[in-house]
Order: sequence, then structure tokens, then C-alpha cells
Amino acid sequence: MIGKLIEEIRKKGSPIVVGLDPNLAFIPKHLQKAAITECGETLEAAAGAVLAFNEAIIDAVYDLVPAVKPQIAMYEQFGIPGLIAYQKTIEYAHMRGLIVIADVKRGDIGSTSESYAKAHLGTMTVGSSTVPVFNADFATVNPYLGTDGVKPFIDVCRENDKGIFVLVKTSNPSSGEFQDQKIGKDTLYEKVADMVEEWGEPLRGVQYSDVGAVVGATYPEMGAELRKRMPHTFILVPGYGAQGAKGADLRGFFDENGDGAIVNSSRGIIAAYTKKGYEKYGEEHFADAARAAVLDMRYDIRTALES
Amino acid sequence: MIGKLIEEIRKKGSPIVVGLDPNLAFIPKHLQKAAITECGETLEAAAGAVLAFNEAIIDAVYDLVPAVKPQIAMYEQFGIPGLIAYQKTIEYAHMRGLIVIADVKRGDIGSTSESYAKAHLGTMTVGSSTVPVFNADFATVNPYLGTDGVKPFIDVCRENDKGIFVLVKTSNPSSGEFQDQKIGKDTLYEKVADMVEEWGEPLRGVQYSDVGAVVGATYPEMGAELRKRMPHTFILVPGYGAQGAKGADLRGFFDENGDGAIVNSSRGIIAAYTKKGYEKYGEEHFADAARAAVLDMRYDIRTALES
Repeated sequence: MIGKLIEEIRKKGSPIVVGLDPNLAFIPKHLQKAAITECGETLEAAAGAVLAFNEAIIDAVYDLVPAVKPQIAMYEQFGIPGLIAYQKTIEYAHMRGLIVIADVKRGDIGSTSESYAKAHLGTMTVGSSTVPVFNADFATVNPYLGTDGVKPFIDVCRENDKGIFVLVKTSNPSSGEFQDQKIGKDTLYEKVADMVEEWGEPLRGVQYSDVGAVVGATYPEMGAELRKRMPHTFILVPGYGAQGAKGADLRGFFDENGDGAIVNSSRGIIAAYTKKGYEKYGEEHFADAARAAVLDMRYDIRTALES
Repeated sequence: MIGKLIEEIRKKGSPIVVGLDPNLAFIPKHLQKAAITECGETLEAAAGAVLAFNEAIIDAVYDLVPAVKPQIAMYEQFGIPGLIAYQKTIEYAHMRGLIVIADVKRGDIGSTSESYAKAHLGTMTVGSSTVPVFNADFATVNPYLGTDGVKPFIDVCRENDKGIFVLVKTSNPSSGEFQDQKIGKDTLYEKVADMVEEWGEPLRGVQYSDVGAVVGATYPEMGAELRKRMPHTFILVPGYGAQGAKGADLRGFFDENGDGAIVNSSRGIIAAYTKKGYEKYGEEHFADAARAAVLDMRYDIRTALES
């Protein structure tokens, strides 16, 4: 699956993934009103507004980017209706030819991790039938439980040609509390990085493996070091835009060919109409604002990669 | 909420939580057949069998134990129908007067963690209405992202009188890969334990706080040390039974009054009919086997606590 992602990045000339983290705080009023008129003030209404919002965003950006990354928490918060919207978002993105990175950050012990892996990337067997479940292409995974929490994901990836991104160094301010602690001469996140390289070994393609890493754009020096430390590990980079990182911070996450990383922006794109420089589009034209923000981000990253 | 859990443990004389981790491999054939007859070989059928199984288990044990712990991965693997069964399991357990510990092991950065917290323990606002979502009483939380991943859970706990259990030392064989690494004179799991004590400080009751810890029964010496290191932290102890730990291993997880911990058993109880000593009940009477296994576990733990 990493080969397909790299191919789509090249084809579209955008190492960019649009984070679909919809939040009622910025879903335009007209979408919320329409949903509440139909379903009342219910979780169904919230989920309906979320799905309408996502479909409009996907329609506006699908020709520019290779992938979207729905953050499942933003759907889970609306319960069953929210998770139905999550599933329909994945289906809609696939219909538009996009790769879907499920930002689920799951991680548990052996058989339980296997269930998560099947849920998000694999299939289930009921009686004699095999049924796909949420059917994303990649999932993010939390490494705190160690190899036997991650291994079942790797097995499911191998069987279904899917991939994972393991949390190595997250973009949030307190990520260092545990991740930056020194263990001997290395930090915890470096230890995790070494394991990610190792876990990915059986799933390597031309250069990169189906086992990637999450490294926050907000820590550019660490990104550059980790790029060298994990030569076969593709990096998913959150933290661009709303969390403060810019294109110039990103050079080090990429390899000498400009491959090796994909940068996520969520609110910076999907809520662009609320941000400086894009207010002119107005709430009604939130999807046009999102498209403009993707084009600006693409320019910003290309400039950084060419410099 | 921790006060209520302690009260229920005392009332029922059982520091035991039944893990509801249903798996088609041990859900009796007659339940699976009935569900497939109704819904075909679909995720709906799997979820229907899961719910029927859970309800029978709950009916058989609700007077003996204070709480159940559904492991959401086992429901997520059946997609939307599975998550509906998850929600109905929580409702059914509440109807039977049980406390529900949602084993979700969620954890993300700030606003995303807040969404998870609201999804599992809090409420959502749609228009001018406030709606509960999955509405469990406790949730398990992964600490890898640090304080700003955990803090939103704590805020939601405070507002809704709920609790969390943060992963400190998990029960699986490879938990030591990262958790046991030495950081200065302490291990990573000890660092996490110290943070858990600190995070819980504003939510302390008579002795224990609403911020608990997960420490695996499979590591009894560490459990005893952590009991002392975290004097205000209630411990959720997985790994009894199927994962190999016995009552005698558990003494150190409890305080001198026999409080301070609750022990989980999942397959050891819910799949008891497949285990040595309980086959006599037969597949049809799986719930009776589960009840017998709870009684045996209660005896085993009481004996250990009295010795």
C-alpha cells in the first residue's frame, strides 16, 4: 500500500493529506441547520452535518491530494450516527479515488490488537462469509504496549496489502514528557523509531515499508534526525498549519528525492474559511476556501522541497 | 465515581470485573446459528450473537460483581452493528446496576482526546440540546502522548463524575519493551505512575482518586511496588486467569484494608465452559459456567487477601 501512496503523491504532485477532523464549531451553520431541520437536535443531525461537510471538502480537493485522514475521535463523539458518517466518509473518499489513512491510534495486547487491525484494515469472517469492516488503507497505531500490540497490525497489513503509521514523536506540546526521556544514550521516541524500522522489515517495497511512523511537524530537528535513522520508514507528519509548522520546517522529513513523507493539515484546510487570508470565501463557500488552502500548502511545501 | 466503585466492591464482596470481550471463537454455536438465521452471514448477525451472549453473561453474574469491562475492539471488529451491540451492552449492564469500565485505551492530542472523553464518558451538545453518547462510567487511557492527551479526560471526569484508568504497566509479554526501559533511576512505567498520581490529585476522594492505573496481574512484584508508589491510585488489574496470574499473585495490588484494586478476568469467565473444570456445564449452559467461574475467582482472591 505504501507503493500506491507514493505513486499517488507523485501523480498529484502533493505530499499532502487532508485531515478530516470535522467539529461543530466550524461546520457551517447552513449545514447544521439543514441537518437539525431533518433530524432534530440529535447525534444523527450532527453526523449528517459532518458527512455533508466532508463530502463537499472531498469534492473540492480530491484532484489535488492523494489521501485524506479522518480522525475517528471526531466521529466517535457522535456515537453510532457519527461512526456511520465515518464509514460513509471512507466510502466516499474511495469513490473519489483517494487513499484513506484512518487516524485511530489504536493499540492493545495481542488478540485485541488483532481485532482492531481487522476492524480498520482487514476483514471479518461470519459463518462462511468474509466481510470488510471499516476498510481504510492505513491506520495509525500506538506503540506503548510493545511488539505484541503492533505485530497483529503488521500481519493484517501483509494479508490485505494495507499499511500503518506508528506514533513515534507526536506533534503536541507535552509529547516530550515520556517520548523525549533518555533511555541510555537514546530517547524513548528513538527506541520506538528503531523498532518501527525493524517491524517494517518484512513489508519493505522498493525503499519504504508498509510500516510508517508519525513524527510531528512541530519538531523539525527531530524529524530530520528520524528521517536518517529510519531510512525505510515513510513518515506521516501532522502539525502543519493550525499547530504552527510551516513548509520550511518540513525539508528534513523528506529524503533527497523529495519522497519519504506526507504532511497532514486538518483545520488549516477544512476550516480555512475561518482563517486569515481565506475569510473572503465566506462560510457558504467553505469548500472553495479549503481548495485554495490546499493549493497554498502545496506551493509552500514545493518551494521548501526545491530550495 | 471511584467512591461508587469501592462501595459496590464492598457491597458485593468481590473486587472483580468481568471482561466482556466476546469472540466468535467461543460464542456458543446455538447463539450464532440463531443470529445467522435472522440476519444471514453478516456483521449484524455477529453483533446479534455478541449481544445475546453478553446479556446472558450479565444476567448470570450481576449480583456477584460490581462491574463489567467491555473491550471495544471486540465490537469495533464488527463495524457499526458491533458498536451498536457495544452501546446496548453498556445500557444492559447499567440496567442491571453494574458499573461499566470501557476498555477503549484511547489517547490523542488535546482537542481530539477531549472528543474521545466526551464520546465515552461525557455528553455532546447539538444545537441547544445535551446528549450522552456511549455513557460508560470509566474508560482506559493510553499515556504515550503525555499530559495534554490525558488532561481532557480528567476534565470530562470532573464534570460528569466519571473516572479513568491510565495504562501504566500492561499485562502482555512484550509490555517491558518500552515500559520497563530505565530513565535515570526509574523505569518508564514508574514515570507514568508518578504522573498518574499527580493527574489524580484534583480528583481525590477519601483515599483514591478518579484517575486510576492499569497494572497487569502478570507482573506481581511491580504491582506491589506500584501500590506503594501510587497511594491514591486505584488499580485495574488485567491478566488474571487466561493470561496466567492467580489469586496469590494479587495480594500486593491491594492496600492493607483489602481495597485499592479490582481484578479483571475476561475469557476465564465468559468462555469458562471451554476451560478445564467447567466443561461439565456444556456450551448450552455457558452462562452458568461463567457464574461458577466468578464464584471460584472470588474465593481465590478472598483467600489470597485473607492470608
